[in-house]
Amino acid sequence: MKLNERGLLVVISGPSGVGKGTVRKALFNIDRHNLEYSVSMTTRSPRLGEQDGKDYYFVSKDEFENRIKEGKFLEYAEFVGNYYGTPLDKVEERLNVGKEVVLEIEVQGAMQVREKMPEAVFVFIAPPSRDALRERITGRATEPEKIINQRMDKADREFDVAHKYDYIVVNDTVENAADKIMAIIRAEHSKTKRTIHKYMKMLEVE
Amino acid sequence: MKLNERGLLVVISGPSGVGKGTVRKALFNIDRHNLEYSVSMTTRSPRLGEQDGKDYYFVSKDEFENRIKEGKFLEYAEFVGNYYGTPLDKVEERLNVGKEVVLEIEVQGAMQVREKMPEAVFVFIAPPSRDALRERITGRATEPEKIINQRMDKADREFDVAHKYDYIVVNDTVENAADKIMAIIRAEHSKTKRTIHKYMKMLEVE
Repeated sequence: MKLNERGLLVVISGPSGVGKGTVRKALFNIDRHNLEYSVSMTTRSPRLGEQDGKDYYFVSKDEFENRIKEGKFLEYAEFVGNYYGTPLDKVEERLNVGKEVVLEIEVQGAMQVREKMPEAVFVFIAPPSRDALRERITGRATEPEKIINQRMDKADREFDVAHKYDYIVVNDTVENAADKIMAIIRAEHSKTKRTIHKYMKMLEVE
Repeated sequence: MKLNERGLLVVISGPSGVGKGTVRKALFNIDRHNLEYSVSMTTRSPRLGEQDGKDYYFVSKDEFENRIKEGKFLEYAEFVGNYYGTPLDKVEERLNVGKEVVLEIEVQGAMQVREKMPEAVFVFIAPPSRDALRERITGRATEPEKIINQRMDKADREFDVAHKYDYIVVNDTVENAADKIMAIIRAEHSKTKRTIHKYMKMLEVE
């Protein structure tokens, strides 16, 4: 890609427990990529070893709420008393220097991004089966059956928005899913709607 | 891909002289593909070494015209007194066993395919510049300036339909163009419109 050609915003999302984070990490392990992970902003306290600007941007609740008012988030959500959000200016800055910016976010956040940046590429990570998702949710949890059922109910509601995404990538194996997302990013750059203006301009120069 | 999952119809097209044939051949040289080239039907006589069913299906003018009447072509055209066309039944047969069927055809043919199979993937091969195309057309022709200008005029008209394609792939290098088409084929299989039904079915099975 040429310098200063705007990058793509790639939104990786899907039901809780589907393995979004693992797929995203595998994506960044692919050779010669041009991806950047978007660092979220949060009001929760840093955990041991977490670095400001690398793991998260850590800010106060007041600052976060001011930024909400000023429309400075591409998306944000509140989760167990803390805010989490994607700073719009950082994303814009990296897209403008030609980086593909990857967001790994929850389904509600993805729907907010769709409103604000409909030109982004929306990838829904799906489990290979409902049983596989239950296994994942059970496997990592030490919580009682009731909590697990609540999580499955949440996942079910999240399944319902899959049709609003551009792509559905089944997480059968992590490498396979990551490879598919990389193919999607490559293909999207050749989409007529993204290339036609550049192409018309090329033809004018004789 | 699972057996019996329907393949994609991939239409590779673009202005005359852009190098569609070379790109198509490079595409078939990529490892572990699942592509099949659609053999055209023609009324012209076989040239030395050409095999019926491999290079072309050779038929009489009467048979070709009967097939037109019976709607048996996905697309066809007349060119210097001979017919050339894509037999619909062969394409359907290969798609149904899960092959990706590749057509390499002229722009007018591609527009006919769009009418009959809008679910196909339409890739417009573009030259890196107008000058590059003129060089290619001049390079391979021994014809006078007038013929070359006629070909450039034809190419200009063909440029105008680029926006009707799903993707525009610049033929900067043949390998690059072929790689992009392969990424497009992979990505198209993850398109929500192609996967959502399968996905909903998977969720029902508990």
